[in-house]
Amino acid sequence: MKNERRYLDHAATTPLDPEVFKIMKPYFTEKFGNPSSIHETGHGAKVAIKKAREQVAKVLHCRPNEILFTSGGTESDNLALKGVAEANNWKGHIITSVIEHHAIYNTARYLKERGLDITFVKVDEKGIINPDDILSAIKDDTILVSIMCANNEIGTIEPISEIGKEVKKQGIVMHTDAVQAGGVLSLNVDKLHIDMMSLSAHKFYGPKGIGILYVRNGTEFVPQQIGGAQEFKKRASTENVPGIIGLSDALFRSDDKRKKESDRLIGLRDFTIQKIQQEIKGAILTGHKTERLPNNISFCFPGLEGEALVMRLSERGFDTSSGSACASGNFDASHVLLACGLDAKVALGSLRVAIGKSTTKEDLELFINVLKEEVKKLAKIAGIVDIAYR
Amino acid sequence: MKNERRYLDHAATTPLDPEVFKIMKPYFTEKFGNPSSIHETGHGAKVAIKKAREQVAKVLHCRPNEILFTSGGTESDNLALKGVAEANNWKGHIITSVIEHHAIYNTARYLKERGLDITFVKVDEKGIINPDDILSAIKDDTILVSIMCANNEIGTIEPISEIGKEVKKQGIVMHTDAVQAGGVLSLNVDKLHIDMMSLSAHKFYGPKGIGILYVRNGTEFVPQQIGGAQEFKKRASTENVPGIIGLSDALFRSDDKRKKESDRLIGLRDFTIQKIQQEIKGAILTGHKTERLPNNISFCFPGLEGEALVMRLSERGFDTSSGSACASGNFDASHVLLACGLDAKVALGSLRVAIGKSTTKEDLELFINVLKEEVKKLAKIAGIVDIAYR
Repeated sequence: MKNERRYLDHAATTPLDPEVFKIMKPYFTEKFGNPSSIHETGHGAKVAIKKAREQVAKVLHCRPNEILFTSGGTESDNLALKGVAEANNWKGHIITSVIEHHAIYNTARYLKERGLDITFVKVDEKGIINPDDILSAIKDDTILVSIMCANNEIGTIEPISEIGKEVKKQGIVMHTDAVQAGGVLSLNVDKLHIDMMSLSAHKFYGPKGIGILYVRNGTEFVPQQIGGAQEFKKRASTENVPGIIGLSDALFRSDDKRKKESDRLIGLRDFTIQKIQQEIKGAILTGHKTERLPNNISFCFPGLEGEALVMRLSERGFDTSSGSACASGNFDASHVLLACGLDAKVALGSLRVAIGKSTTKEDLELFINVLKEEVKKLAKIAGIVDIAYR
Repeated sequence: MKNERRYLDHAATTPLDPEVFKIMKPYFTEKFGNPSSIHETGHGAKVAIKKAREQVAKVLHCRPNEILFTSGGTESDNLALKGVAEANNWKGHIITSVIEHHAIYNTARYLKERGLDITFVKVDEKGIINPDDILSAIKDDTILVSIMCANNEIGTIEPISEIGKEVKKQGIVMHTDAVQAGGVLSLNVDKLHIDMMSLSAHKFYGPKGIGILYVRNGTEFVPQQIGGAQEFKKRASTENVPGIIGLSDALFRSDDKRKKESDRLIGLRDFTIQKIQQEIKGAILTGHKTERLPNNISFCFPGLEGEALVMRLSERGFDTSSGSACASGNFDASHVLLACGLDAKVALGSLRVAIGKSTTKEDLELFINVLKEEVKKLAKIAGIVDIAYR
């Protein structure tokens, strides 16, 4: 029944687009040169990377030399936070939020241990950050504000443009972790009013192991990976040429179809949310109803165990997630859901459905029926006789 | 004439082995799951990574949980040095050498700026480190010794096993940058007496953007990339699944054929060295005659400009290098050649020929003839009328 598997976890990762893969292929075995080599084989790779960088810059509305290719979102996030912290001699105040991805959240906690002053601003029950909270948190020694574009678990879209505009007015560096927004939302760095932005290719049908840190010219930061002179001396390491080609092509493609695909996904998303709310009375929608990623559908089923639900749905052929994939494997309640004011017990019953290019309405109709059945069974096991799960 | 191009720069990077690529392919578009996801698609990726890690551990004669997958040699080197430095509160004494790759050399210089005490041990004129020099450099607060397995520019093989044995006796962490040795020399971590080792897949016909840091259990170090719980909580980031599969397969293949291929390369290497010495009297062999990587042929042509020679050879269809590829683009003389006691003027005339799987004796015979011609032409331009370049 492998063929009937339905992947509904596009927020964890996406399959590489076969068309993107086709573009990447020659760079593995044929055009394999090291871009730092000055001979013809190396030059070919160098030119390919240059073009890729220009293509990425077009999508982000920035200059090519403001794009650093990294190994992924986590490296980009680490580089932004540590890079700015080090440029300030590991001193100063950083503002971030309580619902950031672990790549930001744990890095901020690490910096706190190293003596920096960190403010984790709160969110409302929908996961939305109030720009006023950022502004009132600013101190004389604030060096950086890092707020995610959209949350990976509940899909809430943050008012980055509004925050960025005010933060930049005060001459403070503004970073956004746009890993979950990549390929889905607009990434115009000027309209977002940001100085730094993290992206990861595998979230928008590009390859794993490659990401971007956008760094606006003039932004002071200290490179964290030291060695050769690659990436304008800002990120040493032999360039992952096929990865860079793949990222650039995938970003271009997703941006090209963004408006149309976004509308389609929003339709499917809202249909599914409505249907689940109708059919499973106990389900609690997490995140905001409209300020929400087009592909994110997330619920809590109070009293049930989210991980068990994911396993059961997997057995039925549907790949979903409970909390973020990165946090799976441990049974702590999601810090994001707790930050939204949910009880730990409720938060443990979380389910994230992340739709994508391949998802159809039929898939979701089938999914909703299976979800209903499995929720009912799990509720029975858990001894919940609530009318909500009948 | 593209088909007649001869790639003689396998030390800069190697083409991905098409057989390795075949093994990697399904992990891009089909088995694309995030290993952290607990559903079936994720589980498939997790199992694949587990097997890859076991295969790598077999080649290195270590335990699977001692293998950390990174984005490449530079990250591994940074992680080793900074990770051990941070475990010691950014204090203490580190011993490394004057001929390390920039990923170690520049990271050590960075740590020196941050207040650590760094000793750069010297080498002899063949680039060999005397183990006694390491031992006599050890201080009470020495926390780490990091010496490369083999040099990337001149191919000199260092007495790592001898050094490691003594360093480990004193309870000091021993790291080796084995990036240039990977796939060519034996990587048995016990026989080498090392605690940490860096490797990069693209040096042994694996993909770019993926590497290893081997860390012996019990070795104290602080992770440098913070976020999720991947890689035993020692290196956060969604795993580069196809990259890991490719690295593991490429490492296994190269190790499998190592002895036989090594003998073949040594034959070609020594033939080429001898022939160049016979035909171009002015050429100076750099590095050691026998304690040398099987694939490395490196010379200096005093009075000539190495970069110009590389360009001319490229025009004639041969890809070679002057100094390391990572350092190309700037016209400083190689720190490795200077450390071997060569004059800056002589060092600027360096040429590295790095042979590989595809290289035949015929290729090298053709190459030597072309080299002779181009050296002669360049000497004429440079106004050198020495008999050596006639």
